[in-house]
Amino acid sequence: MLRAGLIRQLMAGAYTYLPLGWRAVRKAEAIVREEMDRAGAIELFMPALQPIELFERTGRKSAFGNVLINFQIQRGDRRVHLALGPTHEEVVTDLMARHISSYRQLPVCVYQIQTKFRNEERPRFGVLRTSEFLMKDAYSFGTSVDQLNSVYDQMYKAYCRIFARAGLNYLPVEAESGPIGGDASHEFMVPANNGEDRIVHCTACGYAANLERAETGRVPKAKPVSSSMTQLSEASTPGAGSIEAVCRALGTTPRQMIKTLLFLADGEPLACLVRGDHEANEAKIRRAAGCKSLQMADAVTIQSVTGAPVGFAGPVGLKCRVLADHDVAEVVDAVVGGNAVDMHLRGVNVGRDWQVDATHDLRMAEDADVCPRCFGRMQLVHGIEVGHVFKLGTKYSVSLDAEYLDEKELRHPLIMGCYGIGVNRIVAALCETSYDEHGLIWPLSIAPYEVLVVPLNVSDTETVESAERIYAELRNLGIDVLLDDRDARAGFKLKDADLIGIPLRVVIGGRGLKEGVAEVRWRWESESRKIPLESAVGDVVEMLARQKIQELAKVPN
Amino acid sequence: MLRAGLIRQLMAGAYTYLPLGWRAVRKAEAIVREEMDRAGAIELFMPALQPIELFERTGRKSAFGNVLINFQIQRGDRRVHLALGPTHEEVVTDLMARHISSYRQLPVCVYQIQTKFRNEERPRFGVLRTSEFLMKDAYSFGTSVDQLNSVYDQMYKAYCRIFARAGLNYLPVEAESGPIGGDASHEFMVPANNGEDRIVHCTACGYAANLERAETGRVPKAKPVSSSMTQLSEASTPGAGSIEAVCRALGTTPRQMIKTLLFLADGEPLACLVRGDHEANEAKIRRAAGCKSLQMADAVTIQSVTGAPVGFAGPVGLKCRVLADHDVAEVVDAVVGGNAVDMHLRGVNVGRDWQVDATHDLRMAEDADVCPRCFGRMQLVHGIEVGHVFKLGTKYSVSLDAEYLDEKELRHPLIMGCYGIGVNRIVAALCETSYDEHGLIWPLSIAPYEVLVVPLNVSDTETVESAERIYAELRNLGIDVLLDDRDARAGFKLKDADLIGIPLRVVIGGRGLKEGVAEVRWRWESESRKIPLESAVGDVVEMLARQKIQELAKVPN
Repeated sequence: MLRAGLIRQLMAGAYTYLPLGWRAVRKAEAIVREEMDRAGAIELFMPALQPIELFERTGRKSAFGNVLINFQIQRGDRRVHLALGPTHEEVVTDLMARHISSYRQLPVCVYQIQTKFRNEERPRFGVLRTSEFLMKDAYSFGTSVDQLNSVYDQMYKAYCRIFARAGLNYLPVEAESGPIGGDASHEFMVPANNGEDRIVHCTACGYAANLERAETGRVPKAKPVSSSMTQLSEASTPGAGSIEAVCRALGTTPRQMIKTLLFLADGEPLACLVRGDHEANEAKIRRAAGCKSLQMADAVTIQSVTGAPVGFAGPVGLKCRVLADHDVAEVVDAVVGGNAVDMHLRGVNVGRDWQVDATHDLRMAEDADVCPRCFGRMQLVHGIEVGHVFKLGTKYSVSLDAEYLDEKELRHPLIMGCYGIGVNRIVAALCETSYDEHGLIWPLSIAPYEVLVVPLNVSDTETVESAERIYAELRNLGIDVLLDDRDARAGFKLKDADLIGIPLRVVIGGRGLKEGVAEVRWRWESESRKIPLESAVGDVVEMLARQKIQELAKVPN
Repeated sequence: MLRAGLIRQLMAGAYTYLPLGWRAVRKAEAIVREEMDRAGAIELFMPALQPIELFERTGRKSAFGNVLINFQIQRGDRRVHLALGPTHEEVVTDLMARHISSYRQLPVCVYQIQTKFRNEERPRFGVLRTSEFLMKDAYSFGTSVDQLNSVYDQMYKAYCRIFARAGLNYLPVEAESGPIGGDASHEFMVPANNGEDRIVHCTACGYAANLERAETGRVPKAKPVSSSMTQLSEASTPGAGSIEAVCRALGTTPRQMIKTLLFLADGEPLACLVRGDHEANEAKIRRAAGCKSLQMADAVTIQSVTGAPVGFAGPVGLKCRVLADHDVAEVVDAVVGGNAVDMHLRGVNVGRDWQVDATHDLRMAEDADVCPRCFGRMQLVHGIEVGHVFKLGTKYSVSLDAEYLDEKELRHPLIMGCYGIGVNRIVAALCETSYDEHGLIWPLSIAPYEVLVVPLNVSDTETVESAERIYAELRNLGIDVLLDDRDARAGFKLKDADLIGIPLRVVIGGRGLKEGVAEVRWRWESESRKIPLESAVGDVVEMLARQKIQELAKVPN
């Protein structure tokens, strides 16, 4: 994007959108607006500066921490504490608390397209993660989960249309669910090698989820106790403070180990077992434990449950509730913590040395995991998040007193959903995924210009006159057309044309001009075709129309 | 705007634009964008968050003072000092310093439409003065004053078209000139009773200027010394610290007094005389004195120049350069400070008691002043500033090293202009000036919707079907149409229709429906006319087209 002159960095995490880049963002913005309007959402515009009190009431001041840009300013003899909106749940809920009184006004969905601000500790990934960005944020308010579901579905469909119209190869993935449960949250991801998000995707059945949310299709089956299993034995592991160190000391592998993590689940001690090479997933543990709060256990709890200080927990002889991941029960002759200082146990087998009733899905998904739907293999894919739809429930309406009266004049909190799209990210995700070694390749729908007219030699009058005529006629027909009238070498101009990636290139001059033809080429094709100069404008308009129809054919209804 | 549901206050100086208000702002924005593109300006988008260093380099950090919202944020282990852009001279000049190398790239004019931030000490005038607002800011860069003048003229014309298209009764007024001199700055004002700016306007010849800039058409002519003049005499005025107190003590009027203001002009003492009822104008004084810096004199200087402490200066016996306003020389038997503690002089006459070579225009203009062009009478008018065009010169390019190479490869600073429009203010100025006792009256160009369809009784099927058909057909034809399908009394809905001021109202139901007609009324007309329901859609489209032509007829070319 830098090289193609779309953006320029002002400072870490802040970019100026140069004319070409800004035109692409504006086209993405227009598509988002059209589809929001089509889905029945109503546009408004809320302030970026917001009173910090609203964030204190919803608890988001502490939840955001340093990411929430907030500061005090002097107003006369008062200090006013303000935040720069990272999103607008607070402001919009406060607004609805004042505007909505009756169930008859519901459901309603409002949106805005506005600059958001976040203090990214380490701004990175170019324009993908910046201190300010253009976001479409929509918020729905309803009386029931049914109303919420209905708006959520409309938004989901609108998102599919938006990303398809933008020419993105997108994937709706299940994300961690909200307070309402079920499929209460989806992220829209664009698979890209340098995306910062990680998702698993089953190409066989289409199942896709982010790593935190992803189920794994493992069937719980403990290995039966067999006589070929080795006997349990103690092993001294002085100074071995990590999985890797224990593996080195005992000559084993992480796959052969069982990690024992100790939590307080709603205040009660809870041990969770996952294989040594796996990563525990707190959201899954919370669901399996059926608890509301889950936090790491303190040293006192660990001492009382394991009989040893922090760092030596293992499943044998634990004095608390134990949850085991499916894969743990399949480890034969496992290596585990010994519940004593500097001690591990080897040859540990479930059903013989420790017991468990059932196993659960407690870990993060991984590449090559089994698909929970079709039992195929899932792939780990990196992705760029371009949108997110979320069933919020009543979190904000309860804390900000946003209520409605039902048919019986009884008060209830509004049931909310929120729906975000990173407008700049649509453009950035295209640039990250649609290119070749020569430069960018835009779809017509987002391209800064649809057509680029290149006169090869601007000192040749006939060339310039032809190019300017075609340029002017296309412009008058409402085509987004750019004329490269720079006095530069033809090769230089054609290289730039490939770099900035305008879909249809019309080259005029040289031998072609003498033959009465222009050379046109789609950016994604290798061969030019010749069209008569006389009919060039009509031919270009027709080519554009056909290409638009092709692009729209990919858009779901 | 509050009552019509266009906006809602979030906190002091911050308003949410509700759907109707935001639609109007977006229409204003679209007109601004079209006219900027038409004038050859190129759109881009710069960050709101900016490094404070840029403002330190141009001196605007201290010039803005508390108005510049700036703060430090934590980034990893660094503190980063940022400002929220009040305008973007610094960022755009820094950008051009990196992009422009040769005179061949010039002139260029770029613009953006973006939220600006200012800490208004006391936010007031509703949405006219808020902490954040939508601004179109354009910046031009050229090699010469000729190039600057040419872009300035294009922008000036574009501004006239924008405000005319928006249906505003606007007045381009001369404002204080920039470093390049001449007509280097114009403000575009909308006369309005509660505007916070004050301008003088000659309805005879069209001359208009803001109070600071306005020349006055006075012809310098000192009254000749005559024997009817009284003799100079001393008068004791103990405790009389103001013009009003002296008038009370000596039984005179401010018109009869001469105020003596003491300055340091480039470090040298300077006395300026203006009539007691007039207000000195520092910009005019600076020009008349031919000095660069002008500041109020300190107590030591005043003591040495007048022989008395602060508060008793007068023209008789002053030991420094004296500049007198034209009107001062016409005061016969003036009352002036006595250059001694608690003492004034009466019967003071120029040419006899003190001398002056020439008189100058040193004061702020006033209502009923003589026009400097046609010598008619000027009116004092309150106005809302909606735009400003300004020849900046090289202030920013010099301090930010933005240079170009000329034909001889010599370096010169870029010559800049800047051009601002308050987009929200276009809407606010309309609301302040286009209304009657029932509510707002929008022009078609900015109206949130062009047509309002009002079914009188939504429990009558035939009414609803007719209204919905007309609504749907108008919508399909691309007309901005709103349907008031609320289940409310007819009178209530018609009152709301007047309040929100949609230009064309189409009422369906009641007796009219039985007769097969709809009643249509322009918001600014008192009488409805009946149109057949069958041809209603066509008739409405034709009425809109005719009205649009009328509105466009007022737009200059």
